[in-house]
Amino acid sequence: MDAAEFRRRGKEMVDYVADYLENIEKRLVYPDVEPGYLRSLIPTEAPLEPESYEDVIKDVERVIMPGAASPACTELETVMLDWLGKMLQLPECFIAGTHGSGGGVIQGTASEATLMSLLAARCKAIRRVQATNSNYSESDVLGKLVAYTSEQAHSSVERAALIGGVMMKQVPADNSYAVRVDMLKKMMEEDKAAGLIPFYFCATLGTTPSCAFDRIVELGPLCNEENIWMHIDAAYAGSAFICPEFRPLLNGVEFADSFNFNPHKWLLVNFDCSAMWVKKRTDIIGAFKMEPLYLKHENQESGRSITFTHTHWQIPLGRRFRSLKLWFVFRLYGLQGLQAHIRKQVALAKVFESLVRADKRFEICAEVIMGLVCFRLKGSNELNQNLLKRITDSREIHLVPCQLSGRFVLRFAICARTTESSHIQQAWRHITQLTFELLQEPSH
Amino acid sequence: MDAAEFRRRGKEMVDYVADYLENIEKRLVYPDVEPGYLRSLIPTEAPLEPESYEDVIKDVERVIMPGAASPACTELETVMLDWLGKMLQLPECFIAGTHGSGGGVIQGTASEATLMSLLAARCKAIRRVQATNSNYSESDVLGKLVAYTSEQAHSSVERAALIGGVMMKQVPADNSYAVRVDMLKKMMEEDKAAGLIPFYFCATLGTTPSCAFDRIVELGPLCNEENIWMHIDAAYAGSAFICPEFRPLLNGVEFADSFNFNPHKWLLVNFDCSAMWVKKRTDIIGAFKMEPLYLKHENQESGRSITFTHTHWQIPLGRRFRSLKLWFVFRLYGLQGLQAHIRKQVALAKVFESLVRADKRFEICAEVIMGLVCFRLKGSNELNQNLLKRITDSREIHLVPCQLSGRFVLRFAICARTTESSHIQQAWRHITQLTFELLQEPSH
Repeated sequence: MDAAEFRRRGKEMVDYVADYLENIEKRLVYPDVEPGYLRSLIPTEAPLEPESYEDVIKDVERVIMPGAASPACTELETVMLDWLGKMLQLPECFIAGTHGSGGGVIQGTASEATLMSLLAARCKAIRRVQATNSNYSESDVLGKLVAYTSEQAHSSVERAALIGGVMMKQVPADNSYAVRVDMLKKMMEEDKAAGLIPFYFCATLGTTPSCAFDRIVELGPLCNEENIWMHIDAAYAGSAFICPEFRPLLNGVEFADSFNFNPHKWLLVNFDCSAMWVKKRTDIIGAFKMEPLYLKHENQESGRSITFTHTHWQIPLGRRFRSLKLWFVFRLYGLQGLQAHIRKQVALAKVFESLVRADKRFEICAEVIMGLVCFRLKGSNELNQNLLKRITDSREIHLVPCQLSGRFVLRFAICARTTESSHIQQAWRHITQLTFELLQEPSH
Repeated sequence: MDAAEFRRRGKEMVDYVADYLENIEKRLVYPDVEPGYLRSLIPTEAPLEPESYEDVIKDVERVIMPGAASPACTELETVMLDWLGKMLQLPECFIAGTHGSGGGVIQGTASEATLMSLLAARCKAIRRVQATNSNYSESDVLGKLVAYTSEQAHSSVERAALIGGVMMKQVPADNSYAVRVDMLKKMMEEDKAAGLIPFYFCATLGTTPSCAFDRIVELGPLCNEENIWMHIDAAYAGSAFICPEFRPLLNGVEFADSFNFNPHKWLLVNFDCSAMWVKKRTDIIGAFKMEPLYLKHENQESGRSITFTHTHWQIPLGRRFRSLKLWFVFRLYGLQGLQAHIRKQVALAKVFESLVRADKRFEICAEVIMGLVCFRLKGSNELNQNLLKRITDSREIHLVPCQLSGRFVLRFAICARTTESSHIQQAWRHITQLTFELLQEPSH
């Protein structure tokens, strides 16, 4: 949607809201639908090609309004997570509208998804250990539980363990910054020998520093054998798995207990919208269910609606209607439009990579797989810190650094929907100009 | 703002967004301001009387745009929580723009605020206990920690303890459904004698079932003496404390370590927006601080901006710009406009209360202090359940029940901005008509 159409559609939407408010007394106080009403009103999969805005907005009145905020909010979310799961070719066990026992939920951020998975795993582990060691108190078990994640994992993973009150160990990565099974297995064996209880592993697909991919195809079977909850955090890279050529990077997801990525990062959906799937709904609901009278409702025990509420799947009690964002984006772009967006941004990263490779003063520091290019000037960390300082001070482009194997590295990330090849060329000219000035200085 | 003005302003805003997108390349990539720039650009307190929409929107370009998303997002939030804290007459120690060490943050929901306070209290308690018992492991301490809250408290409080892996005990309330100091003291003494470590008490001002107020004036000093973190959850009732006549209900907040209420419940701010204050910023930041290289920034250690980031104050890492909602609402209504809204809704609750009291078939079940009226038919729980079923089935109004002292009670809550006396009269006519029909039935 370009700015001109946004002006038109935005103003129509303002009128829609004002009409709604002016006529609110004609609306139903209480939705007159049966739980589960929504699924049959819309397709089972996202469209391949874009639909018209008129068609989408017509469906708001037809599909959403009869179900008001509840149950429409939960039901659209469940179906949208099914659409998205199918776009990613997730195994059937993660899809709610099947005979499986899994399903999806929208969290605010990947931090929350990681925390929820860790808490569900913790609850399951405590119950399992206490079942065979009835003299263990909950805190006895807590003190023995060990979680694992890559040394390259996002800080929010370590933070989840801190919140959950469990130990977390960092698994060293290989020279491509990925975790391999040998290293995790070795650490787990040592910990078990020391009387500890491994219970959770958070794999990363697309690490923050360099967009590396942990080898879940080999890590997954180990976790399954050892009764370790495997959560996959693909916050950034997950969007790319809608393209068949990137989907192999997700192979091994069938071994995971939960999987998460952020459509708000790379799938043209506004912040916040983090999509999370679990293989067994009961694992995550069981860990948090509380049922005071003011939260009870008629259909909750009837089984007619297996997902009538998502409040037991998350930290907050209240929920916003975030699935509308997914519904609009999926339909206005179509799967092909979203794939084209991903492919264009990866191609732009490749353009930047070749510009860097063609300049002998620079080096590429990690394989370029998605829209992130890790690069640096050949030379000291100080030299690169100075270059970054010049880049930041000149306020033309914004780069965030990282450390890889002790080296200070610059990260060039393609993010904005409107980025074109000309922006890449312009950014590179700017970087090389600043590099030229930097290397002119007497100290270098 | 009526629907007509909303149409006009909404469309202007659509144009503003479209203009922004069409001219984005003329904008700064990086804000050219010093941390702390924002506070001096706006008043230190919310206006008493409404300002014009033009004045507010002009300030978006003057105050927000130069600071872009960061640091403007954090800085406006800090100042808005100061405005709101002053509206509530919070003690200075909770206000960031003073020499105190406290300040405010926007959480999504009260559930998250309660969880954050419990986690901060847990961290502080573990450190304190380990400082004098160096042979205690973290899980040894966890197993001894005890949190307390009213038996009338919201289910999210118990859930916070479940997440935090600590024991939580329910304190019996008195016959006005409020917790008194004697009962908490007795429970704590018994627990200490049994070798447990009391560390946290969550008081409720305005309980969910009946809008009761725990006696924080007497509970606070006990918590302070015993090194117990006192958190106050005033999710619903907190908004009313902007009126001098309701402010005495908040007396005792000076003893609290943290305080929270939801402007999205009753202060005309859209969901979600839960305002939380802490007395010592370091307590909450210290419990969660993680500093990977990609989150570091130039000013963080300089002390120039004590609140440059709020990410250590909450569960998610990403943040939305929710303080804009507060800024607009405070200025478009003014303090007096917001006070008028609260007073009108409390008056409507009193109208409903007197209608109930005038009908001898009914009884009022709890003192009506805010916008909630707890009432029931004199008679069995079954009779009242039948009445509620009729109300729900007829879809004219929506009531949520509760249990008080084993009795099934109906809750009539005034919430919507547009509720008028005529709606109250209409609702009561509807309830009495359904009551008439119910009591006609042979079984009664």
